[in-house]
Amino acid sequence: MTDFQATKALFDLPQGVIYLDGNSLGPLPKAAPARMEQVMRAEWGQMLITGWNKAGWMHQPRQIGDRIARLIGAEPGSVVMGDTLSIKVYQALAAALGLAKPGRKVILSDSGNFPSDLYMAQGLIASLDRGYELRVVAPEDVADNITEDVAVLMITEVDYRTGRLHDMQSLTAKAHAMGVITVWDLAHTAGATQVELAACKADFAVGCTYKYLNGGPGAPAFIYVAPRHADTAAPALSGWLGHDAPFAFEQSYRPGAGIERMRVGTPPVLALAALETALDIWDLTDMPAVRAKSQQLTTLFIDEVERRCPQLTLATPRDPNARGSQVSFRFADGYAAIQALIAQGVIGDFRAPDIMRFGFTPLYVDETDVIRAAEIIEDVMTNALWDHPDFKVRAAVT
Amino acid sequence: MTDFQATKALFDLPQGVIYLDGNSLGPLPKAAPARMEQVMRAEWGQMLITGWNKAGWMHQPRQIGDRIARLIGAEPGSVVMGDTLSIKVYQALAAALGLAKPGRKVILSDSGNFPSDLYMAQGLIASLDRGYELRVVAPEDVADNITEDVAVLMITEVDYRTGRLHDMQSLTAKAHAMGVITVWDLAHTAGATQVELAACKADFAVGCTYKYLNGGPGAPAFIYVAPRHADTAAPALSGWLGHDAPFAFEQSYRPGAGIERMRVGTPPVLALAALETALDIWDLTDMPAVRAKSQQLTTLFIDEVERRCPQLTLATPRDPNARGSQVSFRFADGYAAIQALIAQGVIGDFRAPDIMRFGFTPLYVDETDVIRAAEIIEDVMTNALWDHPDFKVRAAVT
Repeated sequence: MTDFQATKALFDLPQGVIYLDGNSLGPLPKAAPARMEQVMRAEWGQMLITGWNKAGWMHQPRQIGDRIARLIGAEPGSVVMGDTLSIKVYQALAAALGLAKPGRKVILSDSGNFPSDLYMAQGLIASLDRGYELRVVAPEDVADNITEDVAVLMITEVDYRTGRLHDMQSLTAKAHAMGVITVWDLAHTAGATQVELAACKADFAVGCTYKYLNGGPGAPAFIYVAPRHADTAAPALSGWLGHDAPFAFEQSYRPGAGIERMRVGTPPVLALAALETALDIWDLTDMPAVRAKSQQLTTLFIDEVERRCPQLTLATPRDPNARGSQVSFRFADGYAAIQALIAQGVIGDFRAPDIMRFGFTPLYVDETDVIRAAEIIEDVMTNALWDHPDFKVRAAVT
Repeated sequence: MTDFQATKALFDLPQGVIYLDGNSLGPLPKAAPARMEQVMRAEWGQMLITGWNKAGWMHQPRQIGDRIARLIGAEPGSVVMGDTLSIKVYQALAAALGLAKPGRKVILSDSGNFPSDLYMAQGLIASLDRGYELRVVAPEDVADNITEDVAVLMITEVDYRTGRLHDMQSLTAKAHAMGVITVWDLAHTAGATQVELAACKADFAVGCTYKYLNGGPGAPAFIYVAPRHADTAAPALSGWLGHDAPFAFEQSYRPGAGIERMRVGTPPVLALAALETALDIWDLTDMPAVRAKSQQLTTLFIDEVERRCPQLTLATPRDPNARGSQVSFRFADGYAAIQALIAQGVIGDFRAPDIMRFGFTPLYVDETDVIRAAEIIEDVMTNALWDHPDFKVRAAVT
């Protein structure tokens, strides 16, 4: 039994705000500033270079990886931190292509994948210049397109716009039956749904930590390699900290054992320290509890908003098992509506062309928040509060 | 005229320590913890997702890039922050190969290059599988090996072990005369020597910010692309923030204008905030002043140590214009000697097989420190303080 009021009390949430954008950037753990000050003053400041050993900085990427492994159903020692999610996508895809059946040239993905994943694949394909093809199909057509010409299936488990959740178990099984290697992007599932990488026999997975995991803006990414591949996967990004003996300073690269080889450069110590304080909160719960609560919250939100706002069209699957931890509605003036909502203290976000997106994060969002948010959405819609020039000027947001 | 006692007062240096390892990890700017707390509480905590616009997080990588551009003689708008140095090496080398003369297959580097640069090149070559060859020659043989079969010259300007400084101007000129594209790694020169990328007509450059620039452990890297190449260089690591319209969420990658295309994923906001406080100190000086002072300090250190310690053999060029901002001595028991020095409050570091390495950083190291360090080194050597079992057990250090 998780006490979600207790976890909520561990975040520093602004007064008067209902934050439904933790699917984009999680909030500040109350313990993070003090921990950061300690790392800066007592470790960086006082230990200086000796902090790499004395403070254990060099081991952070593996230790934190293990804490995340628990949340995504991964084996201990199979996850390591570093870089950004886009870099990790490149790294996983390159390694997956190296393990793919000879002669296969198709990387299968879907139009619900986050664009950066597609872009990184395009960049890798262009660099390799060996006739690889990125085949992008509609999300509902993925299963039927897993055929014997596919080298790698590269899928983001939850669609960032609609919240549609792919079935990792069945798609991975189909992929393996067809001899296809899988790369799963967990950007919208790590900390949001019950991911079971080991049970699903996933090959590679990557994810970020600034969304549901609450690691802070630009927090480092992670990569998972199934233990059965970890000693054979070839790292395209062969940096010194993935070397078998980084401090021997040899001239030739020799990949480290297992997941170590997926390390690249110097770990981002300060950012990892902030993430650690978020993971301390995650230690108070487990994903079955979070998933159950998330499904309650998203169902309640859909019910409350649909009842109050006939102007909005649900874009997210109605079946709680077919969606992640977000709810999206379509509305032609969605951009302005989201701005109006932010002005009223309900923070969601907008995705082109017409998606109003709301994330639900049981660690700090509860039923009271959901009902109050629905009331404010009703006010904004019923009274057309969005129909004001101030809300229609677009600026870049993530 | 820079007041280096004033800059020294802006760093939080441990009592009783003479820190000669700023070439590996710079010390804590006193302003950094408060700035970090403000970014965490007022920006991340209160603005949440809106911080990307309201706090300007999205523009940090370019704004900070411009501040570093001033320190490396680069044109405004030619530098952007992100990722680790190893990733930036890969990105620069891949783009450089794309601009190289058709048919050329040789990447020329030297044995004084940092191993990770060589490893990243090896990883890229293996991925591309198009017959590229990494040709590694002795540092003194680089110029003679810039021939018409070379595609790219990839060199770290200062040798991390000996401190030997390559002549960027003449090597770049020779490279261009032979139709060779240059990639300069400034890990040990940014903030250490007077780098003039634009004047030297360098093509690409990369560097880190945790050494002489004092950005903190794991601080982000930077990449420079000469403006004449910036709109034609093809990014292999084609992430969404390098897209021409990242928030249009198109399915196909279109590179952004100029240096923007060298951005990859979400910027490391917290780490960049710490770096900003270090750059505030850099704003109080310029590289000609730092370089002049650095040459005084390294010359003084060599004179003082050689006079006192006949056991040590200078590994660094005696000509101040032929070295960076470090001094290395060879000593068979160098590892133990460095441990003994650390126990006495003089922090340097060791590089296999026998290099004792000391960095000189005018922002916070002065003549008094240099002379006191020489006295302590004399004590350690004369009295064989290093000859103790405690100092001989090796642990990994960077």
